[in-house]
Amino acid sequence: MAEKRDLVIIGGGPAGLTAAIYAARKALDTLVLEAGTFGGQMVLTHSIENYPGFPNPVAGVELANLMAEQAKTMGAELRELEAVTKLEFKNDAKLVFTAKEVYETKALIIATGSVYQHLNIPGEKEFTGRGVSYCATCDAPFYKGKIVTVVGGGNTALQDALYLSEITSKVFLIHRRSEFRADEVFQNRVFKRENIELVLNSEVKAIKGKEKVEAIDVFNKQTSKIKEVKVDGIFIAIGQVPVSKLWQDAGIKTNERGYIIVKDHQETNIPGVFAAGDVTGAKGQIIIAAGQGAIAALSAYDHIKAKEKPA
Amino acid sequence: MAEKRDLVIIGGGPAGLTAAIYAARKALDTLVLEAGTFGGQMVLTHSIENYPGFPNPVAGVELANLMAEQAKTMGAELRELEAVTKLEFKNDAKLVFTAKEVYETKALIIATGSVYQHLNIPGEKEFTGRGVSYCATCDAPFYKGKIVTVVGGGNTALQDALYLSEITSKVFLIHRRSEFRADEVFQNRVFKRENIELVLNSEVKAIKGKEKVEAIDVFNKQTSKIKEVKVDGIFIAIGQVPVSKLWQDAGIKTNERGYIIVKDHQETNIPGVFAAGDVTGAKGQIIIAAGQGAIAALSAYDHIKAKEKPA
Repeated sequence: MAEKRDLVIIGGGPAGLTAAIYAARKALDTLVLEAGTFGGQMVLTHSIENYPGFPNPVAGVELANLMAEQAKTMGAELRELEAVTKLEFKNDAKLVFTAKEVYETKALIIATGSVYQHLNIPGEKEFTGRGVSYCATCDAPFYKGKIVTVVGGGNTALQDALYLSEITSKVFLIHRRSEFRADEVFQNRVFKRENIELVLNSEVKAIKGKEKVEAIDVFNKQTSKIKEVKVDGIFIAIGQVPVSKLWQDAGIKTNERGYIIVKDHQETNIPGVFAAGDVTGAKGQIIIAAGQGAIAALSAYDHIKAKEKPA
Repeated sequence: MAEKRDLVIIGGGPAGLTAAIYAARKALDTLVLEAGTFGGQMVLTHSIENYPGFPNPVAGVELANLMAEQAKTMGAELRELEAVTKLEFKNDAKLVFTAKEVYETKALIIATGSVYQHLNIPGEKEFTGRGVSYCATCDAPFYKGKIVTVVGGGNTALQDALYLSEITSKVFLIHRRSEFRADEVFQNRVFKRENIELVLNSEVKAIKGKEKVEAIDVFNKQTSKIKEVKVDGIFIAIGQVPVSKLWQDAGIKTNERGYIIVKDHQETNIPGVFAAGDVTGAKGQIIIAAGQGAIAALSAYDHIKAKEKPA
């Protein structure tokens, strides 16, 4: 027998937790399923200074705990370490399968986020949040006047390099090929920007330091030599991938990059199924994901109420 | 001579202040102009429990101060009590006029919010935030098991009454006419809901209490008699009006209700002019307004950078 719920939210980052706060306050019987621990990408962030309401920077783990506590206080049920393995939509019924349980829910919100592509090199994981960043919009201001490197060759990498060059003293832009694939307009600007130094045909092989990042090892593929470069930060911009494969399998439409397509009010193509946050392309910004989570919850409430018989 | 800026933000509520935090962190020379005091509708709210990150309810004034402090810390300039009187768009130039000054800006974000219609009766202003509310989504959970009244006859009023009837013990729905103008589906539900009592052809004439709302005076237009009704809260749902007249005059497109029409990324019909928050119909939710403010700021940044000559 399936456990019955008004609303199941898949994913416990800022979008999912905000949706839970809003749904529970609307007196919906709300369950949040999180495959890992609550907070999403937030918990990887050492210091957040752009989440409105916190003029003193807050640790990602702390903000995640505050949001999770709030969702629980409002009456939502939160289950960690319970990954969804399958979705099934049959007429109006929505079934959510995990290894432990089957849930039948009136409405569903998908907020599973996206994951940044990693270089998978020594030091990368160790220094994440202490010199290694995947989001220039989030972290650039922490590097005022310092020396940083950007890794990548697409639009994001070149835009990040341009933005960082306005804040830091020097940017190394490291790319494994001889040419960038970014739009020409960004390439032209990068070429003319004096404090951006291009390091082509090169790969970062290691990130080094004591408490935080101090240097990187750069391998030149043409000379086959490794050179140590002193940097205060490394911004890895080699892409991100939305966590949406299982939802595609269930018939939820995504764009060509895998992001769930949402209409106004965060609706997907399937009635009663909503999506919010980075899985829809919210760009890794907590406040944007949270705002979408609130909209999704209010939409889910309206959907459920519209289906109810007058009583 | 006009003062030059990268970005002018009109309105200092959650949308405008979040836009300022994001824009200033992107190193844009950012000015926020607020006609009154910072915080927008937030400052009228006694206790906010649905803004993610604050599991203990926070006073609206306090959250407003935190956001304003954060915007200043990031480097934005905030000017209170400086109302915009006119906008002019000439080719790429955007001119913002106030009684004191003329600003020329590369990009503009409009975040002037909306105002709730008031009954303009004794006690209404005095008890706002202490029993008088204009937002059931915001405040209904504070009235668990209590007796409340809803004033109005449109979709919002009837939806609020239905929602409140699930949380409170009893809802009086007071309307000045003999029929509701809400959709039939909501009317049918209201008619069948046992703990909603209809009070038609009636107007609330006064709101009374000591520390908080305790009773209302209800005038029956057919009998011409006034009756005192004991209630713990009164939800006034007689409409809201976006603050958009001046922007319409400048050529910014709104819908038939006066809300600014925005495309993806919070763009208006005028290049380089963005809008966020309740003036676009964000439903009075702080987190939604703030999320839109962040998107608008990132879009304004992209707009400004796209216009710059390579350098």
